[in-house]
Amino acid sequence: MNNRLPFQQYMNDICDRLDSELTALFPEGWKVPETLHRSMTYSLMAGGKRLRPLLVIAACEAAGGSREAALPVACAVEMVHTYSLIHDDLPAMDDDDFRRGKPTNHKVFGEAAAILAGDALLTHAFYSIVQSSRKHGIPADRVLSIVEDLAEYAGPRGMVGGQVADMEGEQGLTSLEQLEYIHLHKTSDLIMFSLMAGGRVAGCSEAQIDSLRSFGKHIGLAFQIQDDILDLIGDEAKLGKPTQSDVKQEKVTYPFFIGLEASKREVERLTAEAKSAISEGNFPDPSRLHEIADFLLARDH
Amino acid sequence: MNNRLPFQQYMNDICDRLDSELTALFPEGWKVPETLHRSMTYSLMAGGKRLRPLLVIAACEAAGGSREAALPVACAVEMVHTYSLIHDDLPAMDDDDFRRGKPTNHKVFGEAAAILAGDALLTHAFYSIVQSSRKHGIPADRVLSIVEDLAEYAGPRGMVGGQVADMEGEQGLTSLEQLEYIHLHKTSDLIMFSLMAGGRVAGCSEAQIDSLRSFGKHIGLAFQIQDDILDLIGDEAKLGKPTQSDVKQEKVTYPFFIGLEASKREVERLTAEAKSAISEGNFPDPSRLHEIADFLLARDH
Repeated sequence: MNNRLPFQQYMNDICDRLDSELTALFPEGWKVPETLHRSMTYSLMAGGKRLRPLLVIAACEAAGGSREAALPVACAVEMVHTYSLIHDDLPAMDDDDFRRGKPTNHKVFGEAAAILAGDALLTHAFYSIVQSSRKHGIPADRVLSIVEDLAEYAGPRGMVGGQVADMEGEQGLTSLEQLEYIHLHKTSDLIMFSLMAGGRVAGCSEAQIDSLRSFGKHIGLAFQIQDDILDLIGDEAKLGKPTQSDVKQEKVTYPFFIGLEASKREVERLTAEAKSAISEGNFPDPSRLHEIADFLLARDH
Repeated sequence: MNNRLPFQQYMNDICDRLDSELTALFPEGWKVPETLHRSMTYSLMAGGKRLRPLLVIAACEAAGGSREAALPVACAVEMVHTYSLIHDDLPAMDDDDFRRGKPTNHKVFGEAAAILAGDALLTHAFYSIVQSSRKHGIPADRVLSIVEDLAEYAGPRGMVGGQVADMEGEQGLTSLEQLEYIHLHKTSDLIMFSLMAGGRVAGCSEAQIDSLRSFGKHIGLAFQIQDDILDLIGDEAKLGKPTQSDVKQEKVTYPFFIGLEASKREVERLTAEAKSAISEGNFPDPSRLHEIADFLLARDH
C-alpha cells in the first residue's frame, strides 16, 4: 500500500487517539470525589507503552474491524493494566516508589486512595467495554464474550492468580515451570485478552480467536523474558526504574534458570512461533501484528 | 397461597441455595493458587446476612422470574460485597481486626493476599454474571445491562466513590448532605443494583426497573441509618463487632446530626416510601419485597 504509515507513526497515532479517548472518559467535573478522579487519572495518564491497547486495535484492524469500535475495549484493557500496576506497587506488595519515572500512586495519594483508585479502574473497565455496544453497535453477544474473557484472563484463574504466584515465588522459586506459570498468567493473560477482544470486536470466527490467543501467548512470554533480560542489562534512564532491581531483591528470573544467551534465543523462538500462529488465522491484513512482534523483539526498554 | 413459606423459612432457603451455588463456583481443586482459593472463600463463606443476594432473588421472583436463573447474579453481588468488606477492613482503610465475629481477611492471610483476594472476587463477579446467559439462556442484551449497571453502581460513580467520600469524611463531615452522599453510594448503590439486576433477569420493563431502583434507594438509606442506630444502642454479640466503634473513632453518623429518635422516625419514613415505590411497578407478587422492608426495619443486628 502506498499510503501505509511507517510503524512508529502507526503506533503514535494509536497512542494519541487512545489518550484523547481516555481523557474524554474522565472529563473535568466527572461526578466522583475529586481525589478519586485525580488518583485514577494520575496513573492512567502517566504514559507507558500502551502495548495492550495497541494490540486490541491492531487485532481488530487485522481482521477488518474499525479502530473507533475497538477504542472502548482498548481503554478498558489499559485501565485493567493500570489498576494491576497500582496494586502491585503497594507497600504490602512490591513496595515500589517509582513507576514510569514518576512516584507511584500511593506515594502521591496515600495507600487507601491507591487501593480504591485500582478498584475503581478495574470496575470501570467493564463499563467501558459495554460502551462498545452502546456507542458502536457491536452485537451484545460479542460484547458479553469480551466481558467473560476479561473476567477470566484478569481474574483469579488469570492475572490475579499469576500475581499471587509471583508473591509466593518471592520466597523462592524452585523450577522454571513455576516461573513460566507466573509469566503466563501475570503477563501473557492480559496480552492474550487484548488480542482476542480486538478480534471479537471485528467479528472474528472462533478459529481466528484461537490464532490471536496463541499469538498473544507467545509474544506475552517473549515480552516477559525480554523484561527479565533488560532488567539485567538495560539502561536505567530508558526503563524509568532502577535496573537489576530483581537481582537486588533476589528475585528469580528467566536468565537465572537458563542463562542470558539462552534466554535471548528463547525470545526469538517465541517470536517466530507467534508469527506462525497468526498466519493460521487467515486475516485480511496481519502485517501490523507481525510488526508488533518484531518491535517487541527489538525493544531496549 | 396455602403453600406460602413463612418469611424466615423463605430467607433460609435462599441462603442455603446461595451457599451451595457459591461452593460449586469455587470447587476443591479449582485451578488457582491455593492461598488465593482459601482467602477468597474464607471471607465469602464467613456468613453474613446475604441481604444483597436475597434482594436479587426476591426482585426476580416478584417479577415472575426463576430463582435458578437469578443465582449467578446473586452470587456475583455477594462477591462484590465481600470484596468491598475485605478492602474496607485493610490497615490502610478502616484497620479492622474482626468482621462477622471472625478475624478479618488480612489478619489471617496477610495484607497482600487480602488485596488480591478482593481484586479476584470483584473480577470473578463479572464472570458469574455472564453465566446467567451461558447456563440459563438469559438474553445477551439483558445480561449486558446487568454488567453495565454493576460497573456503574459498584464503580467510581457508585460504591467506590462512596468509600472514598467516607474515608475523606473521617477528617470531619460538615453536613448531613455529605453523610447522605456517603450512605447513598457506599450502601444503597449495591442494594439498588441487586434489585435492578434481579428485575433484569426476569425481563422487567424499564418502568419496573425504576420502581425497583427507587425501592432499593430507600431501603438502602434506611439500612444504613439503622446501622448507625444499632451501633449506638445495639448488642455487641448480635452485631459480631464492637458497638460504638464509630463513636470511639469519632465518626460522624446520622444520629449525630438529627438525634436518635428522629433517626428512628427517618428509618420508618424511608421504609414506607420504599413500599410505595414498589407498588408502582405492578409486579405479579411484590409481597416478599414488602416483607424484606419490614424485616430490615425490625432488625436488631
